[in-house]
Amino acid sequence: MKIHFRCMTIFGVGLIGGSLARICKKERIVDKIVGVGRTEGNLKRAKELGVIDEYYFDGKRAVRDADIVVLATPVSSFVKLVKEIVPHLNKGTIIIDVGSVKLGFLMEVENLMPEGVHFIGTHPIAGTEKSGVEASFLELFEGSKCIITPTPKTNQGALEAVKELWRLTGSHIILMDPARHDRILAAVSHLPHLIAYALVNTIEDIDNIEHDVVTYTAGGFKDFTRIASSSPEMWRDICLLNKASIIESVNRFKYNLELLKNFIESDDGKGLEESFKRAKYLRDNMNK
Amino acid sequence: MKIHFRCMTIFGVGLIGGSLARICKKERIVDKIVGVGRTEGNLKRAKELGVIDEYYFDGKRAVRDADIVVLATPVSSFVKLVKEIVPHLNKGTIIIDVGSVKLGFLMEVENLMPEGVHFIGTHPIAGTEKSGVEASFLELFEGSKCIITPTPKTNQGALEAVKELWRLTGSHIILMDPARHDRILAAVSHLPHLIAYALVNTIEDIDNIEHDVVTYTAGGFKDFTRIASSSPEMWRDICLLNKASIIESVNRFKYNLELLKNFIESDDGKGLEESFKRAKYLRDNMNK
Repeated sequence: MKIHFRCMTIFGVGLIGGSLARICKKERIVDKIVGVGRTEGNLKRAKELGVIDEYYFDGKRAVRDADIVVLATPVSSFVKLVKEIVPHLNKGTIIIDVGSVKLGFLMEVENLMPEGVHFIGTHPIAGTEKSGVEASFLELFEGSKCIITPTPKTNQGALEAVKELWRLTGSHIILMDPARHDRILAAVSHLPHLIAYALVNTIEDIDNIEHDVVTYTAGGFKDFTRIASSSPEMWRDICLLNKASIIESVNRFKYNLELLKNFIESDDGKGLEESFKRAKYLRDNMNK
Repeated sequence: MKIHFRCMTIFGVGLIGGSLARICKKERIVDKIVGVGRTEGNLKRAKELGVIDEYYFDGKRAVRDADIVVLATPVSSFVKLVKEIVPHLNKGTIIIDVGSVKLGFLMEVENLMPEGVHFIGTHPIAGTEKSGVEASFLELFEGSKCIITPTPKTNQGALEAVKELWRLTGSHIILMDPARHDRILAAVSHLPHLIAYALVNTIEDIDNIEHDVVTYTAGGFKDFTRIASSSPEMWRDICLLNKASIIESVNRFKYNLELLKNFIESDDGKGLEESFKRAKYLRDNMNK
């Protein structure tokens, strides 16, 4: 399938939005890219870098020419944003989001779509702990998975176009039920982020009692907690919008941690070793 | 201070023992290195690689010529091992260990020392999740910290020699009370390992219910759980020997994770964001 867009409007020209824009320019599948954001510094820089062609602070103005709109702002902004722009959209426009959660807003947003405007939920599983357009690059999505979450309301033509768009980024496309997407992401991404944030806060608590603990964090600790440098606003939104699945994951994790703690308390070396071996076996096989 | 050893006997010629041996050879501060271990494959390979000159399975035989003995086997083996070798040690011999825990064995081992034989606890804070002599390399300790834990019984001459030995590895030497060492390591190393093991086991539990979850673990998750590939035997020992401090760290972590969970349950976005910001601030400043 060959795709071409006259105008792509990107809300949030950061790591994800900026990288997608760079790819669309390189692949020449879009005539013009319009950026929307709150801070002029980042938008100005995006224009200087040639990532976008124009920028606006006013979403309504920004979507005037759009035939595709990309929502790459925090997940919690989507409903309000869509409400604001839908009256100004051209017929045939496709809206996609790139958020880490789907269920929390998808039905509401789909119900807001006017006749002939199509919403498709997408989630490129790629990223670094960095943010802003400066962090964006052409290869961000290469070899990673992009989950697309069609629903019974999804327009098939729009779906095919969006699949092709993400295919051009080098992603491997997976179609998935939005509820399953949210449960899986809670486990493999949202839970680890919560743990990393909680661990770093724990180290600070201990540092307040046992002076100078932080200086003893070595490379392993730094790798382990890198994701605690991720955007607090973005992760706040994800947590609140994927509440049920995240809480279930946290509870399962607490159970496993408690098991290990109990083995330690009862000097159960055999139990500890077996739990560690089970984890090592699984982790070693993830490399394959 | 210039140091030289006639014979260094290393129990456990793995990542740490092997790397130390390589450095001693390169720095020409030892005439002969003897390896001791349980599996001939690794010892044979160590000899082929020129990391050691001889090897024995019998510790008593292996220490006959030693003027320095390095214990690089799991921490739980130290007391038994020291009991076995002390009758065969030459006067003036120094014994060091490289374990991640000190308090659990240090006093007992010190009390086993015959007149003129000196034990010094050392802990090079370096390592990878790999093990075995094949994983060892000259630069392992470069720029990392090496904590040495003298006690009131410590012989000052032996201490100076051991400080010089670790200095030659490129480590930054820190003298520390063994109890403080164990509390700090519980926080910055032992707790993260427990968390990584528990997280990987949680992913497997969820994978058993929600098919195929593991395939969605991306780079971030793999960095985060790399330490779950560490040796189960070694970590079992560390956990059992640093029980009190580890349990305290786990409890503090559970408290911080519970805080985040409560914020999510009560839709407290402000609380979540503030906790995340606090962690991000601390983590960002660790890079400096």
